[in-house]
Formats: sequence, C-alpha cells, structure tokens
Amino acid sequence: MKTLAEYQQLVEAEIKKQFFDKKTQPKELFEPIEYILEEGGKRLRPALCVLACHLFSEQIAQAVKPAVALETFHNFTLLHDDIMDKADMRRGRATVHKKWNENTAILSGDAMVILAYQLLEEIDSKYLSQVLKIFNQTSLDVCIGQQYDMNFELRPLGTQTEAVSESEYLYMISKKTSVLIAASLQIGAILGGAKASDAQNLYDFGENLGIAFQLQDDLLDVYGNEAEFGKKIGGDILANKKTFLLIKAYELLHSKEQLNEIIYFLPQSEKEKQYKILKVTEIYNSLEIKELTEQKILFFYHKALQALDTIEIEEFKKKILKDFAMNLLNRKK
Amino acid sequence: MKTLAEYQQLVEAEIKKQFFDKKTQPKELFEPIEYILEEGGKRLRPALCVLACHLFSEQIAQAVKPAVALETFHNFTLLHDDIMDKADMRRGRATVHKKWNENTAILSGDAMVILAYQLLEEIDSKYLSQVLKIFNQTSLDVCIGQQYDMNFELRPLGTQTEAVSESEYLYMISKKTSVLIAASLQIGAILGGAKASDAQNLYDFGENLGIAFQLQDDLLDVYGNEAEFGKKIGGDILANKKTFLLIKAYELLHSKEQLNEIIYFLPQSEKEKQYKILKVTEIYNSLEIKELTEQKILFFYHKALQALDTIEIEEFKKKILKDFAMNLLNRKK
Repeated sequence: MKTLAEYQQLVEAEIKKQFFDKKTQPKELFEPIEYILEEGGKRLRPALCVLACHLFSEQIAQAVKPAVALETFHNFTLLHDDIMDKADMRRGRATVHKKWNENTAILSGDAMVILAYQLLEEIDSKYLSQVLKIFNQTSLDVCIGQQYDMNFELRPLGTQTEAVSESEYLYMISKKTSVLIAASLQIGAILGGAKASDAQNLYDFGENLGIAFQLQDDLLDVYGNEAEFGKKIGGDILANKKTFLLIKAYELLHSKEQLNEIIYFLPQSEKEKQYKILKVTEIYNSLEIKELTEQKILFFYHKALQALDTIEIEEFKKKILKDFAMNLLNRKK
Repeated sequence: MKTLAEYQQLVEAEIKKQFFDKKTQPKELFEPIEYILEEGGKRLRPALCVLACHLFSEQIAQAVKPAVALETFHNFTLLHDDIMDKADMRRGRATVHKKWNENTAILSGDAMVILAYQLLEEIDSKYLSQVLKIFNQTSLDVCIGQQYDMNFELRPLGTQTEAVSESEYLYMISKKTSVLIAASLQIGAILGGAKASDAQNLYDFGENLGIAFQLQDDLLDVYGNEAEFGKKIGGDILANKKTFLLIKAYELLHSKEQLNEIIYFLPQSEKEKQYKILKVTEIYNSLEIKELTEQKILFFYHKALQALDTIEIEEFKKKILKDFAMNLLNRKK
C-alpha cells in the first residue's frame, strides 16, 4: 500500500497527461476545463478510488483513468454549481463564469461530463457495465442532491410546516456530497476484483464518512479557528444557509422569534455582520448545537467504521482507511 | 423492414415508458426533462438508429433504448443551446429556461446527459465499449461544434482576414449537427451486428446527409415558402446569422460595401425588416447564391449516396435509405 499523498500524485500525473498537456481545440472550450482542474483541491475522490483498488489488487494502473473520471465529474459539478449559486470565487480564484462568461461555463461543464465518460472507456469489459451503472446512478444522485439543496434554500425559514427537517437535510447532503465519495471507493474496489459485498461495504463506509465530512464542514463554519479554517468564520450564518446547525436550532427552539429576528436581520457593515454571527452563535450555544452536531458526526463516523469492519481485507489495510477517516474528522479546514 | 413512422412509434413508446410514466422525484428536476421531450420533433436520430439495426438484424428491441439515449442527448443539447442563445421559444412553446429559470435549465440538462448514458447500460457487453466510445466522441464533437458556432458569431462580418470561411462553416455544422445523425446510424448498425466497414459507411452516409440537411435549412430560411416552412422567412437575415448563404455572399463579392450597409442596418419596424430581407435576398440573387447552395447540397447528397452504395446489404434496404435521403432534401420545412 501507499500513502494517500502517493495515490494523489498518481492521479495528478494522469490529470496532467489527460488535460494539461493536450491543448485541444477550440481553446474557448478546453481552457476553462484546464483552469478548474489545475487548481486542484484535495483529489480526495480519485485518490480513494486508486487506494480502494489497491486493497484488492496490485494492478492499480487500471484504476487511475476511472479515478480521474470521478475527479473530472466532481469538478464539473463545482463548475455548474458555481453558476447556479452565483459564486464569484472558488479556491481563491475567480470562478469560470466570472473569468469567462456563463455560456462558456455551461458548455465547458457539459464537455467535462463527456470527458469523464471518455475516461471510463478503457475499463476491462468484464467490469465496464457494472462501473458504468454505478457511475451513472451516482452522477444522477449528485444532480438530485443539488436540486434538493436549491429547493431547500427557497423554503421559508423556521415555519413549523415547511421547515427543512433533519432527515431531509441528511438525505440531501448524502446525495450531493457523499455518494460520489462512496462510489469512488466502490468503483476502485470493483476494478481491484473485490467481491460485491466488499465493494458495497466500502460504498457504505464512504457514504457515512461523507455525511460526517459535510456535517463537519457545517460545524467548522461556526466553530472553526479562522486561521486554520482558511476562510472567514460565519459565512453560512451571514448567508442564512440552511446548515445542520440552523435546522437543528429551529427544531429545538420552542419559540422561534428570537432566532427569526436575528436571521431576518440583514447586516450592512462589518460590525453588524460580526453582531449577527455572535448572536446566532449564542443561540447555538444555548441549545448545545455544537455538541449535538458532534454527536451526529460521531454517529456517522461509527457507522462508517462498522461498514469497514465487515470488509474481508487484512487489518493493516483497514487501518489505513481508519486513519484516513480519523484525519478527515479531526481536520481544522 | 418497417416505415420510418413505425420506427418512430417504437421510439415514442420507449420515451413514454422511460420519461413520462415515471414521475421521478424531485419534480423540479424531472418535469423540465419531460417537457422538452414530450413536444417531440421528428425523432429522426432514434428512428434512424433502430432502422440501421434492422438493416442487419431482426432483433431490433435491443436498439430502442440506445436510440432513446441519442434522442435524450439531442434534446439536452437543445435545452442548453437555448440558454446560450437566449432563445425564448422552441417548437412553438416557451423554452425551459423561460418557463422555469436558468438554474433549472442547466441542472435538468445535466441530468439529461446522465439519463442518456443510463439508457446505454443494458447494451450487450460485446458491443458496450464500442458504442460508448462512439457516443462519447460524438457528444464531445457536438459540444465542439456549438463552441465554434458561438465563436463564429463573435467574429466580425465581412472583413477579409477574419471572416468565417466556407470550410470552417462546413466543419462546424458537421460537428454540431451531422455527427449525431451519423452516430445514430453507426450505433444502430453495430447493435445489429454489422461489420465495422458497413457501420462506418453508414456513419459517412449520415454525416454527409446531415451537412446537406443543415445547408437545406439555411436555404429554406431565405427561399422557403412561409406557409410550408412553418416559420417566418428571413429570420437568419434579420439576426445576421452567419449561414452558408451569407458566408458565400461575402466570399464572392468584390466590394463588400453594399452588403455591409444592409447587414449593419438594424431594422426597427416590420416594414424595415421586410426591406432588409428583400435587399439581402436581392444581393443573394445577383450572386446566384441559391444555385450555389443547391449545388453544395447535391455535392453532399451524392457523397452520402456513394457511402451508402458500398454497404453490403440488399438493394431494397438501400432503397429505404435513399428514399429517406431524397425526402429529407425535398422537404419544405
């Protein structure tokens, strides 16, 4: 086995080969694709795909292109989500639709989906149909998750009948975030020749870990350390984003007036923004939302570990995934 | 063999089963997909796919889902192109981004691409990889064609150095329009067990016919009969669209002033619009653009028939495709 960083390097080299060295024409279509892929991010999904293959086989080269397919699809979703969310910045740089324009962002995104599927073409015919099915279902799930996320943002805050429930929220983040992590592990396992139950258990490990990961993200926005977190604390609060914390607070409050008052207050100055963040955090503190969220994270973390335990691989291999899971949940950013 | 209308009915029934009867959630994602697919159009691509399969095999059921995949992909391109072109109407109804909004149109389109790939899942494993490769390459080509189309519209009209050339235009319409018709035939043939050279010749038949079809479209916009054409004559002229006719006129004119004057004139009233259409048509007439375009259409029509001739199938089967090609080129709308 290798370290996660080593799998990431394998993936990075393939991304370079597939996208950065080619300079395909017309440049208006392909430059934005190179742009969004070159910044990088953690390459979590493809690294996990290659790692999962390595759990069952020494032939890991066959998993590298499909791994890059998963990363390409992931970056496509970021590209199109940024248009839909009207986001100006991504990883410290202008988003594609800001740097170019919306049409470019739409069409380059479309091309990325197809390029992702092209990276699946060379999969051994005995696995191709199976992998294609998982890739399709997962990709559709991500679209469904994004649609629910947009639907939720349009629903009124804090009314008893229409408020987004905890279970609805967990369903949404599972689709939008977790399934692609889960599928990355499952596809890697299949390519490594894992039996179906092991591949499915790796999927379950990834799905539960992904949910824990997203809840951690919600938590860090409020309770993270700004220097370590790398972005401003309280961004979700200022955007009235329906995070796990806000949904839980509405659920627990007997009288919602106090929270409604501060949520519907639109701060203008930096001072007013700090005030809003402080007040919402105070309400969260009074309801012990931090502890509740941490408990929920642990719940999914343990479900992930349970799924991992049932996989029939050597203990030292399980330990790699356990360490990975632990690092993910102890992360400060 | 069946009539084209009968293949269309087979396809229509499968579209109903796959999309209209399912009512998949969330409705915000799936209703726009149903909306764009229900209006219909000619179902040309999927009908040709099933027909091509039938040329080589009696087992045509296996081609129906892949045929619907091609139609789904085609309608996805219409959906996203309408956003990019800021088109308000499509086939007499509001476009998806007008009836709903842009985010819905982007995300529903994305889901359609994936649904198209899902319809390929059940292809026999001995053909799957081959069909997937053609589907991928064709889909990417369509994106490339759309990008060139957008690029061309941004280039200045009628300057000697930057004008879009005839060969550039033919390349663009081949990618944007023809390759999907070509691939529909090729994929059908492969699923019917055709040998590679026959499948390739059917592709060539479709590609050349598709170019002729698009040139015919350009011609009908100016020289069609409004009652038969079903839409206003001169729409491309009013939009200054770089059609084959306009590109050819610029190429042939020694002095471009007369054409530039009328092209850069922006008509306000209905009367001024009619004046502009009349004046541009007069220039086309003086250059015999109609005849030149008809010659070009015939050139590609004959190339299509040549490709058809080399296919090793019975004459009565070839006749079906010949009749189809002739009907397509004698169409008035």
